[in-house]
Amino acid sequence: MQTPDIHILSVATALPGPAVDNATLARRFNMPPVWEQWIDSFIGTRFRHFAMDLESGQVRYSLADLGATAAARALDAAGISAHEVDVMVLGTASPDTLMPATVNMIADRIGVDGVPTYQMQSGCCGAFQAMDLAYTMLMSGRRRTALVLGAENCAKHLDLTIDVAALPASEQVNGVLFGDGAGAMVLTTGPAPRRAVIRQIHLQLVGRNRPPGQVVEWFGRGDRRSDRQPVMEDYQAIAESVPLLAAEALEDLLDDLGWQEDDIDYLLPPQLSGVMTRKIVEHLDLPGATEVSCVVDIGNTGNALPFFQLERALSRLATGDRAVAVAVESSKWIKAGLALEMT
Amino acid sequence: MQTPDIHILSVATALPGPAVDNATLARRFNMPPVWEQWIDSFIGTRFRHFAMDLESGQVRYSLADLGATAAARALDAAGISAHEVDVMVLGTASPDTLMPATVNMIADRIGVDGVPTYQMQSGCCGAFQAMDLAYTMLMSGRRRTALVLGAENCAKHLDLTIDVAALPASEQVNGVLFGDGAGAMVLTTGPAPRRAVIRQIHLQLVGRNRPPGQVVEWFGRGDRRSDRQPVMEDYQAIAESVPLLAAEALEDLLDDLGWQEDDIDYLLPPQLSGVMTRKIVEHLDLPGATEVSCVVDIGNTGNALPFFQLERALSRLATGDRAVAVAVESSKWIKAGLALEMT
Repeated sequence: MQTPDIHILSVATALPGPAVDNATLARRFNMPPVWEQWIDSFIGTRFRHFAMDLESGQVRYSLADLGATAAARALDAAGISAHEVDVMVLGTASPDTLMPATVNMIADRIGVDGVPTYQMQSGCCGAFQAMDLAYTMLMSGRRRTALVLGAENCAKHLDLTIDVAALPASEQVNGVLFGDGAGAMVLTTGPAPRRAVIRQIHLQLVGRNRPPGQVVEWFGRGDRRSDRQPVMEDYQAIAESVPLLAAEALEDLLDDLGWQEDDIDYLLPPQLSGVMTRKIVEHLDLPGATEVSCVVDIGNTGNALPFFQLERALSRLATGDRAVAVAVESSKWIKAGLALEMT
Repeated sequence: MQTPDIHILSVATALPGPAVDNATLARRFNMPPVWEQWIDSFIGTRFRHFAMDLESGQVRYSLADLGATAAARALDAAGISAHEVDVMVLGTASPDTLMPATVNMIADRIGVDGVPTYQMQSGCCGAFQAMDLAYTMLMSGRRRTALVLGAENCAKHLDLTIDVAALPASEQVNGVLFGDGAGAMVLTTGPAPRRAVIRQIHLQLVGRNRPPGQVVEWFGRGDRRSDRQPVMEDYQAIAESVPLLAAEALEDLLDDLGWQEDDIDYLLPPQLSGVMTRKIVEHLDLPGATEVSCVVDIGNTGNALPFFQLERALSRLATGDRAVAVAVESSKWIKAGLALEMT
């Protein structure tokens, strides 16, 4: 079956409010300066942006706000209007509401209408799932131009009244690990000289008989009915499994394509935290590839993050260059990979 | 481009607990007998099943429980094992958690692993979106056998401590309108004699400049932080718009296929409530088609409901028969249609 090349016409991103550094976080939560050092050495993330204003506790941006900004920028960068979009997909773990799906609120804001829309409920691999749906739609010939988004807004899980010092380290880490943001890309089957082509997207659930490494409840901290922790992370399982699964995802992708490790010019690794990303990159061991990472500067923005990496990488790719992105979702363990080639 | 026929190998469903009639609901919420008459005449739904035990308030079934039961039944009815499934999709408005996606918990339960999985966050059109993703994956040749699910579990929004009599009618209705349940189907590109073939799936967002007709917040009734109503429905907008949009969805579908109205042997209309469905069917005006509806007996089970309709319809289809399903999502207004033909 003859299928068209799927080109990336543009990638754009959006961040809310100012960059919040570790000193500001420590001050806001009445933590001692040693806490800053703990973040530096164990997390390695220096800045993040929040949809909630840290001083007032007011939520300044919704997921739809962030998504609409990134989407409008991506359309603008692609030089197309909203009317040319004939399928739209959002991947997120943190929708504004359960209904309507936030993708449809964003569509209204930017003027996309009369087309199918889809929203993936997913953790770190949702951006790849969203790209994969769009990619398959375009490949099947049913659609021509796709707008794909990944976005997160963790405000519902940020409780400024909490006594951080009284929390176990496994919960303290949530406040410093994550950030809010949105990314968007335009994909097309049309001719697009000097744009990157998607060569493969590889997705694989590997959760069989494996307890979740991350659970985010549908309720937030304000819900007093439940004794369950709203956000649970099994850091030991994550630290053990993610580097191994990332290596498998990379191998799967290369196998699919018949590429060799030294074919890879740019590596976009998983972005859990500065420290975890460093360990993963060491484990992947691709000395010939240039690493493109953002987590130190913007925190773990979940499904938005691959778009930040792609935005940085695409501006550097020369004709013939190959880039590979890898992600691992620790919730119920999913491996994801994306391979690009510059035309 | 030559594309394979996508066959429905099987459809199966699952319901939690006993059927709850209107008299039982009225007793449980200390409502007078006239309330039963109000349900009969304005809603027209006689029974529904709940994941929560109405006497004890205990949640007996998770969304994963319901989904795993329906999925196992669908695999059994298709005569295939979980290892043959190479893509899995769930459509739901009411996931168990935000992470992991419930589709992955169901996969673990039934033994699906090593394949891509997707979960659509959506209202009544999520089942069609899930089918559409699977359909496109199979059509593109990237996958061969899909397991598609639609499921709802409203327990988080059911508060037994509430004084129903003190609620406005617009909120009282939520307790009687909805029910819990799950449905699953197996789709394949392989040869499948005497099975229905999917001829078209039509999805269209029509939310531009139109306020949502339904909002379901991510928090439940237990969340005291917010003044917002956890579930909001604009019944006037729904009553006005859904029959018109259903007619448009039907017309879109027939246009796509070049079918005429009298080609349709079975009509699976939107299932908002017994009364609304009756009005919609009158408006669609297809005297030659046999209606297949379930809402009176199981309530509005959201993304599960099309599977209950399909299960009933497929057992009756003879070779050459054509069936059409139509749904409208009032959250941000989506039209959906599905066309089948028996081989």
